[in-house]
Amino acid sequence: MKKKPEIIGERLNGSVSSVGKAIERRDGAFIRQAALCQARQGADYLDVCASASEDEAEILRWMIEEVQSAADLPLCLDSPDGRVLEQAAGYCRRPGILNSVSLGREEDLERIFFFLKKHPGWKAVAMLGGRTGFPRTAEGRLEILEEILRRLELLGLEEGRVYADPVVEAAAFADSDDPGSRDPRAVLETISGIRRRYPGVHIAAAVSNISHGLPARSYVNQSFGVLALAAGADCLILDPLDKGLQGALSAAGSLLSLDGEPSCLGYVRDYRKHLF
Amino acid sequence: MKKKPEIIGERLNGSVSSVGKAIERRDGAFIRQAALCQARQGADYLDVCASASEDEAEILRWMIEEVQSAADLPLCLDSPDGRVLEQAAGYCRRPGILNSVSLGREEDLERIFFFLKKHPGWKAVAMLGGRTGFPRTAEGRLEILEEILRRLELLGLEEGRVYADPVVEAAAFADSDDPGSRDPRAVLETISGIRRRYPGVHIAAAVSNISHGLPARSYVNQSFGVLALAAGADCLILDPLDKGLQGALSAAGSLLSLDGEPSCLGYVRDYRKHLF
Repeated sequence: MKKKPEIIGERLNGSVSSVGKAIERRDGAFIRQAALCQARQGADYLDVCASASEDEAEILRWMIEEVQSAADLPLCLDSPDGRVLEQAAGYCRRPGILNSVSLGREEDLERIFFFLKKHPGWKAVAMLGGRTGFPRTAEGRLEILEEILRRLELLGLEEGRVYADPVVEAAAFADSDDPGSRDPRAVLETISGIRRRYPGVHIAAAVSNISHGLPARSYVNQSFGVLALAAGADCLILDPLDKGLQGALSAAGSLLSLDGEPSCLGYVRDYRKHLF
Repeated sequence: MKKKPEIIGERLNGSVSSVGKAIERRDGAFIRQAALCQARQGADYLDVCASASEDEAEILRWMIEEVQSAADLPLCLDSPDGRVLEQAAGYCRRPGILNSVSLGREEDLERIFFFLKKHPGWKAVAMLGGRTGFPRTAEGRLEILEEILRRLELLGLEEGRVYADPVVEAAAFADSDDPGSRDPRAVLETISGIRRRYPGVHIAAAVSNISHGLPARSYVNQSFGVLALAAGADCLILDPLDKGLQGALSAAGSLLSLDGEPSCLGYVRDYRKHLF
C-alpha cells in the first residue's frame, strides 16, 4: 500500500519574527495555537525550532511541552546542535525526527546515529552538504548521501531511518558572477537521483526555501512542491496553513497516484476535510 | 534562445453555456470582451469554437470578425470538420492554428495537411486518437503520432507545423470496471515520450480537461499544468483569467528555466504585468 506524502509543519520556528517574540515572552497560548492549526491542516509532524544561541535546550523543552499539550503529533526537532537534539528528544512523548545531521558536523552525526541505534522509532534528517558547503550538482549531493548511508549501514541501521534533505535554496538568488547557480533543476535532479538509487531513503524537501525574495511566494512554493513530489520526494516541509499549496499538492498526489488511489479520491477527501 | 510556453485561451467556446447564449443572440460585445480579457492576461492564441451542428462556418465567421476587432492575436480555429476549418481560415487576418486533425477522420486530415502545404504560416493540432478511439497507453498514442508525422513528411512539411494533442481526459472518471483507465500519468508519459522522440513537434495539452467533475478545479489544473510543462509540453490550452493557474505556471516556467532566464526574472516580470 502506497502512502501519501508526509507534511512537516514549519510554522514553529524561532527565526520567524512572531514566533521569536512569542518565545521571548514565553507565550504558551501562541505556541499551542500554532501547533493546533497545523495539526488541523493535516500536518504529520510539527517542526520545533528555537533558533536561539543561548538556552536553546531550555527553550525547546518549553516549546515541546506547549506543543504536546495542544497537538498529538510526533515532532521534528530542529537544531544545528546534536547534543541539544539528543537532550530535546528526551522531552518528547513519542519518537519523531531529528533535524539535522551533515558531514560537516562529524561529531554530531556520530552522536545522532548512535541515538537512532538506541531508540528504534526515531529518524534523522541528513542534509546533503559536505565539509566545505553544499555541492552545486546533483551528483555531488548524491555522493554525500552515499557516505552518510555508509555510516548508517556500519551501525546496522536501515535506509528508512534517514530523511535526505536535498538542500532547497532560493531560486531568485543566483550568484551574480554565475547565473546558473542555485538552479532549482539541480535539486529536482538530486531528488530523482536519490529515489532511483536509494528507494528506501525518505526525501524531505523544505519547499518554502525556494521562494525567498520573490513576490507571490505561494505560487512558487506550489509549483516547486508539485515538481518535488513528481521527482520522488515523500516528505515536504512547508506551511500547512497555505491553502493554495495544500490544494496544489493534494491534486498532485492524486494525479500522480502517490497514495495508490484511483479517480482522485484522495483529492476529494482532502477537499471535504477543508484542507483547501 | 528558448521560448516561454505558449498559451491558447480557451474561453471562446460555444459549448460553454454563457458563450453559447452570446452566440445565439449574436452578442458581439460579449465575444469582444472575452477576447480582450484573454489577450490582456497573456494569451498567445485565442481558441474560437462555435460548437454548433448547423451554420458552423457562418457562426465562426461572425466570431472571428468580432474577436479580430478586439484583439490582435492569432487564432486557434476549433472544429471537428476539416472543411469548416479551411473555410474559417479564410476569415483570419493572419495565420493561426487549425484544431484539429486525427487519423479517425482521414479525409479531413488530408485536406488540412494540403492546406498547410499551401499556407506556410498555418499549423495544425493533431489529436492522438486513432480510427477506433483513444489508445490508453503512451506507446499507443506515440504510434499514432508517428503515422501522422509520416503523412506530414510525405508532403515535405516540417514537424514544427504540428501541435500534438496528447488527449487529456478527466482524471476523476476512470471506468468503473477498470480503475486504472484515464490515468493522468499516461498523458504525462505521452508528453515526455513525444519530447524525447520528436523534439521539433509542438505539444499542446488541454489542461482544463483533467479536472472535470472535481471540486476546486483550479488546483487540479495548476498541478497538472506544472507537470505537463515539466514533461515537455510547450503549449497549454487553458483559461488565462485563472490567476492561480497563471501564477503556478509562470513559477514553473522560471523554476524549470523554460524561458532560459536565470533567477526567476520571468516570474517577476509576469507578476509585475499583473498576470496573477
